[in-house]
Amino acid sequence: MTVLSAGATIGILGGGQLGRMLAGAAAQLGFDVSIYCPEADCPAARVAATHTVADYSDAAALLAWAKTCDVVTYEFENVPVAAAEALIDEGVLVRPGAKPLEVSQDRVVEKSFLQSAGIETADFAPVDRSEDVDDAIKRFGGQGILKTRRDGYDGKGQARLEAGDDYEAAHKSLGHAPCILEALVPFVCEVSVIIARDHRGTSLCYDVPRNEHVNGILRRSIVPANVAAGVTDRACHSAAALADALDYVGVLALEFFVLADGSLLANEFAPRVHNSGHWTPEACATGQFEQHVRAVAGWPLGDVTRYHDVEMANLLGDEALAPPEALSKDAVLTLYGKRDAKPGRKMGHLVKRLT
Amino acid sequence: MTVLSAGATIGILGGGQLGRMLAGAAAQLGFDVSIYCPEADCPAARVAATHTVADYSDAAALLAWAKTCDVVTYEFENVPVAAAEALIDEGVLVRPGAKPLEVSQDRVVEKSFLQSAGIETADFAPVDRSEDVDDAIKRFGGQGILKTRRDGYDGKGQARLEAGDDYEAAHKSLGHAPCILEALVPFVCEVSVIIARDHRGTSLCYDVPRNEHVNGILRRSIVPANVAAGVTDRACHSAAALADALDYVGVLALEFFVLADGSLLANEFAPRVHNSGHWTPEACATGQFEQHVRAVAGWPLGDVTRYHDVEMANLLGDEALAPPEALSKDAVLTLYGKRDAKPGRKMGHLVKRLT
Repeated sequence: MTVLSAGATIGILGGGQLGRMLAGAAAQLGFDVSIYCPEADCPAARVAATHTVADYSDAAALLAWAKTCDVVTYEFENVPVAAAEALIDEGVLVRPGAKPLEVSQDRVVEKSFLQSAGIETADFAPVDRSEDVDDAIKRFGGQGILKTRRDGYDGKGQARLEAGDDYEAAHKSLGHAPCILEALVPFVCEVSVIIARDHRGTSLCYDVPRNEHVNGILRRSIVPANVAAGVTDRACHSAAALADALDYVGVLALEFFVLADGSLLANEFAPRVHNSGHWTPEACATGQFEQHVRAVAGWPLGDVTRYHDVEMANLLGDEALAPPEALSKDAVLTLYGKRDAKPGRKMGHLVKRLT
Repeated sequence: MTVLSAGATIGILGGGQLGRMLAGAAAQLGFDVSIYCPEADCPAARVAATHTVADYSDAAALLAWAKTCDVVTYEFENVPVAAAEALIDEGVLVRPGAKPLEVSQDRVVEKSFLQSAGIETADFAPVDRSEDVDDAIKRFGGQGILKTRRDGYDGKGQARLEAGDDYEAAHKSLGHAPCILEALVPFVCEVSVIIARDHRGTSLCYDVPRNEHVNGILRRSIVPANVAAGVTDRACHSAAALADALDYVGVLALEFFVLADGSLLANEFAPRVHNSGHWTPEACATGQFEQHVRAVAGWPLGDVTRYHDVEMANLLGDEALAPPEALSKDAVLTLYGKRDAKPGRKMGHLVKRLT
């Protein structure tokens, strides 16, 4: 069944804050939510109807769980591709499917796929051995960022290099994992497109936020991005091309570097709702979480009209432990219910209306 | 502890749609929610961290549950007063306490309390035997509404009477329960005040909605109410007087009849979030559910600024079973996850932005 009735069950692979906010949006539309996650006390499970605690590699548990769901989606991109494929083979409706996982899990595959969809990226080269760096870094003007092909997030798993650095030490610091060397991009700012695509192939973009990262972690997203209209139009056009190329159903985020001349280089995409879209529930007719639920449920997409200018700021680590008075000033507060406020950990966010 | 930390547990007595929406708002602020409700598959339990299935009269189960919560609140006014009092006696923090239950559960006590707080109501008289009707209905101009003192809601448990009707038959139709005869009020419209009061005694009113009932069931709330400014100011003043008189902590709703000359007669109050406030999450900086959570958690109240005009329409019975396309037109949809769409049952609501 490609269109779910109210009261149907939406299964979510993953139990973090994105799953928690998806679960809240699904509940608002009358759906039941079932979480599959290896951790017993995960944020999403505490707002869901049911929770299966098992590993993603446990094929039997995964299938038994999926059979209780009317559709299965995911809240993070590191769900094993084989797990998603096994469910699909068994007739489970998995949206947005296995392909977006396969493509987004490997930076080399991802950038190649973006280029094949007509979306420009920074120069890159696969690095299997540290010797591979030398040739590539010369081509890239003597600078680059070495990143693991897989499993990096929030600035983890990367090292900035200049020509003549100790490449072997850098590769060792990344565990000699298969890597990618990316050319450094002289960007003036970063933007992202949050796009939803339904099962009929219709897609809708939210207004484009400008994103500010510190130490590789998103700190703030501001809308409007204050870049030329042509820039955001081209970014949205690229995101739609990517969603079409993936035959995507749901919300995805495509991140870009904006160069001084207004040209765009895609950095990476996330096959899920995205931190840089956390302002949408407060500022738009339909937020990204509800939009993803609508898409995977086969419901019509909601209106993405933005009603006011807005700034979203992440609360990292013990910033979220400030007294309620401090957290509640002039902004809508969301906390994720994480038990442990480790430094740099995303604990919540604030959405501030600017106009 | 009168101020809860993020991650604390909020206990809710009752598992219906109000509990479900309170649970969603509590989760957004990082709280865990525990539901106490006699029904195993209730709407609120499916979005809460834990659920105790037991009767309100089961004192041992109730206390054991309450001891796992940092504060206990309720989503409906028919929680037994004795149950709330027993918890308070055992040192459980119950907000908004037992008194609002005691007062609101009996229409005679309620109207007497309103009057003692300086709030005008329609004339009324207790009816213990059908003979009591005769004298009262004459004083009320030959018309009245006979209502059970307890347990009426959505127009249930009432009968309209004219002088000379068969009072005994009317009383019999209400099971010979202790009743109240209320004078008929020639109102031009109905409005309600949704007010929040924190544990320091500060109170904040939302903008006042005009409410349209059909067969005793709320169909629509529209804001602004389009009554004279003096009317809404007086209504808010009365609601604040009531909240103070009850030493209330949380959100309550006070319903009024508006007469042709702009005078107000209070009808009844609900010691909880209220159907006529369901537009607040979409139209205001802080919705009524978050506001109630903030109050019972001891957090500062949120801003109640309303950003646009708005209309809330209830979805009753099979209205909620319409296809997603029909339900999603130009309005924010909320469905309650109820399994059975009985005629007249509140299944969800739509919030439409008017400006």
